[in-house]
Amino acid sequence: MKNWIKKDAKYIWHPYTQMKDCGELPPVFVKKAKGIRLYDENGKAYYDTISSWWCNIHGHNHPLIAEAIKNQLKVLDHVLFAGFTHKPAILLAEKLLGIAPKKLEKVFFSDNGSTAVEVAIKMSFQYWRNKGKKEKKLFVCLDRGYHGDTIGAMSVSGESLFNEIFKPLLFQSIKVHSPYCYRCPEGKEKSQCKTDCFKHLESIVKKQHGKISGIILEPLLMAAGGMIVYPLEYLIKASRLAREYNIHLLIDEIATGFGRTGKMFACNHGNISPDFLCLSKGMTSGTLPLGATLTTNDIYNAFYDDYDKRKTFFHGHTFTANPIACSAGMASLEIFEKEETLKKIQEVIPFFHTRLEEFRNLPFVGDVRSIGMVGAIELVKNKETKEPFGFSERIGYKIYKNGLKEGIILRPLGDIIYFFLPLCVSKTELEDILIKTGKVVNNLLKQYYI
Amino acid sequence: MKNWIKKDAKYIWHPYTQMKDCGELPPVFVKKAKGIRLYDENGKAYYDTISSWWCNIHGHNHPLIAEAIKNQLKVLDHVLFAGFTHKPAILLAEKLLGIAPKKLEKVFFSDNGSTAVEVAIKMSFQYWRNKGKKEKKLFVCLDRGYHGDTIGAMSVSGESLFNEIFKPLLFQSIKVHSPYCYRCPEGKEKSQCKTDCFKHLESIVKKQHGKISGIILEPLLMAAGGMIVYPLEYLIKASRLAREYNIHLLIDEIATGFGRTGKMFACNHGNISPDFLCLSKGMTSGTLPLGATLTTNDIYNAFYDDYDKRKTFFHGHTFTANPIACSAGMASLEIFEKEETLKKIQEVIPFFHTRLEEFRNLPFVGDVRSIGMVGAIELVKNKETKEPFGFSERIGYKIYKNGLKEGIILRPLGDIIYFFLPLCVSKTELEDILIKTGKVVNNLLKQYYI
Repeated sequence: MKNWIKKDAKYIWHPYTQMKDCGELPPVFVKKAKGIRLYDENGKAYYDTISSWWCNIHGHNHPLIAEAIKNQLKVLDHVLFAGFTHKPAILLAEKLLGIAPKKLEKVFFSDNGSTAVEVAIKMSFQYWRNKGKKEKKLFVCLDRGYHGDTIGAMSVSGESLFNEIFKPLLFQSIKVHSPYCYRCPEGKEKSQCKTDCFKHLESIVKKQHGKISGIILEPLLMAAGGMIVYPLEYLIKASRLAREYNIHLLIDEIATGFGRTGKMFACNHGNISPDFLCLSKGMTSGTLPLGATLTTNDIYNAFYDDYDKRKTFFHGHTFTANPIACSAGMASLEIFEKEETLKKIQEVIPFFHTRLEEFRNLPFVGDVRSIGMVGAIELVKNKETKEPFGFSERIGYKIYKNGLKEGIILRPLGDIIYFFLPLCVSKTELEDILIKTGKVVNNLLKQYYI
Repeated sequence: MKNWIKKDAKYIWHPYTQMKDCGELPPVFVKKAKGIRLYDENGKAYYDTISSWWCNIHGHNHPLIAEAIKNQLKVLDHVLFAGFTHKPAILLAEKLLGIAPKKLEKVFFSDNGSTAVEVAIKMSFQYWRNKGKKEKKLFVCLDRGYHGDTIGAMSVSGESLFNEIFKPLLFQSIKVHSPYCYRCPEGKEKSQCKTDCFKHLESIVKKQHGKISGIILEPLLMAAGGMIVYPLEYLIKASRLAREYNIHLLIDEIATGFGRTGKMFACNHGNISPDFLCLSKGMTSGTLPLGATLTTNDIYNAFYDDYDKRKTFFHGHTFTANPIACSAGMASLEIFEKEETLKKIQEVIPFFHTRLEEFRNLPFVGDVRSIGMVGAIELVKNKETKEPFGFSERIGYKIYKNGLKEGIILRPLGDIIYFFLPLCVSKTELEDILIKTGKVVNNLLKQYYI
């Protein structure tokens, strides 16, 4: 094993990683995975509580997904998707549109979340040009939103550690206050909340709608921004606002899609039907890269014309609608039906939320929030003032290290510990996960209170 | 089958496609593929002469790649690649660095060509910031270059039909004259060529190098720009220029990599060792999405520091280094060895080039160009003046339609017919492909000369 780790250090540059940290804490060499567990070379198990970056749905190495991939390999590996089509893409598109909000009627495939977002941005932008409204070219986004790491996706994300250095390369977008209840931008307490924070978005749209192409939002959960769960009311109001002022609503369900919030899509909580729905991650149950941007016939029709009218959407990726990935996607959606996944988790969710709430009483826990299979614990240095731990204290990193020792993946976002559970997790596993988490957190943080 | 096509039209928005055209010419429903052939529902075969968008290498459904994928599915489908690592990624990284130009010593994985380019741009840009040289933030590119469809990749591409509409969203880059010999920017004939076109790039770098982060190039072949093969001398000079003026050389081998130009990488023709090498497409022999950005230890070390120095490269994609795709990549590189692919094609290439040259004598053929397994025929309305056919004549589209009838995929870029052959093509298949092409081209274009 040491040999593998040496080779890793010699050849590989890991994502989002200060590689110097790998000297002190080398990456875990994962040999195999099953269900919610990863196993290293020595057979030690780790709970994959974050679904391998929020993508795994039915557990690792699900036999029906493996079977679907194997069957696809017998007939068609891949073919270009312009001028050609195939069964896995058509079946998956049909299935997706069958479960997605009603107004969505067309699927444009790509390879990952960033490209699904870039497609939505570009389609929205070109839509207005095709309609002769060139002045509508701005995007509005939340100041803690996150939509990916390509230049376009970063441009419509909030400013953060992830993208601040690249600011000179980004196009301008309008960032509005996030509905971050624990640190309410209006200074309100939860009990007084009338989603006043919405006024910021509202006033900007009212003033500038003539220049705005669309609003992009992660629905109900700003994931990378700190697993911030926000009121449904905000989402509903934003959706109405977009309609009223004739601007597009771009919904990014890359993280929230496929059951993670307790319903198939977070949009379903409020009967929201956006102009664009971006999907990836869980679409293949996290087995293979695949992205999709769903849109309406109104959008589609604005591009549908004679070729020489120059309205075509000239965008594509080599592996667009890769048949193997589409087969995995189709298998994942079939598992939802066969295993009654959404029904099953309705029992797990209340148990999870209740147990998670118990963390709130700990002295260093500022906030606990949850939606569906996602939960977060925001650690603070001072509960009264909500003062966070310093950047250099690296509380999150320490929790991560100690979690690994306990056989559990806790990979805090800053000081926010979170769970992004695969839908297959059992109550027993969950109980064990939360006990282990409590142990890690208490052991690390008690030093601050002695 | 009609049912499938109906469903396709109902649910799917295809890449780079004016969907209205699908009414007249519906996409081919591909049921299976083998070697260089695709088969539709009726068993009709089509030569995949463009390697399904330049990605297929060893032919479709190669048994060794299927086997590798199946074996990987037994152990590990996917795991996040920060804090975790696995055998398929390490083996593939080791293998890639073993065959890549010498100075390249680290691999950063992603999902497709666009992201491989975005990673290179972002790393180059951040490198100078990490080194305290914030003023070095511009990229220089060729005015007919193409590097992908995400906002960052479009920003460093030439202006074209693909991206002109999105200009307000792109960051500024410096476009220099392309070494397009048939339409020489210096107005020279080939016999007089002293790569004078290089002077444009040279003068810009000499004047502005203090503000330049890097030069990005497709080596020897500008693919999407019109399958323009350019002199090695240009590439060598550009490489020296980058060294001399301390700017990065970003080489995009997404299309040219993995044997397509007759050597493993186009860089190998001139012993070029860039600061960044972008790979995708052929890396998995075109079976699964995978991208990689290879770089030097000099670049890597500029990001390697204590966490609180804020030099980390904060970029990643969920499916970074997907184990299944990496296994396919490893299998593809093993096939290169087992089947002695690069040796075998040395016999096919001269035959291909010689036969292709025969098209030059036709009245409507302006230029014929080739490198390795790639060849192009540029059609013109007038051979003397080099006047192209008009946009609205859609010569390319007509050739495409007639090609399909003959069972061959000819998918011209504008009026440029091209072949981007899988390395597995036999001389017999190639002969058949070129005969069919001649038939299609002659039948269509003779009307212009009667």
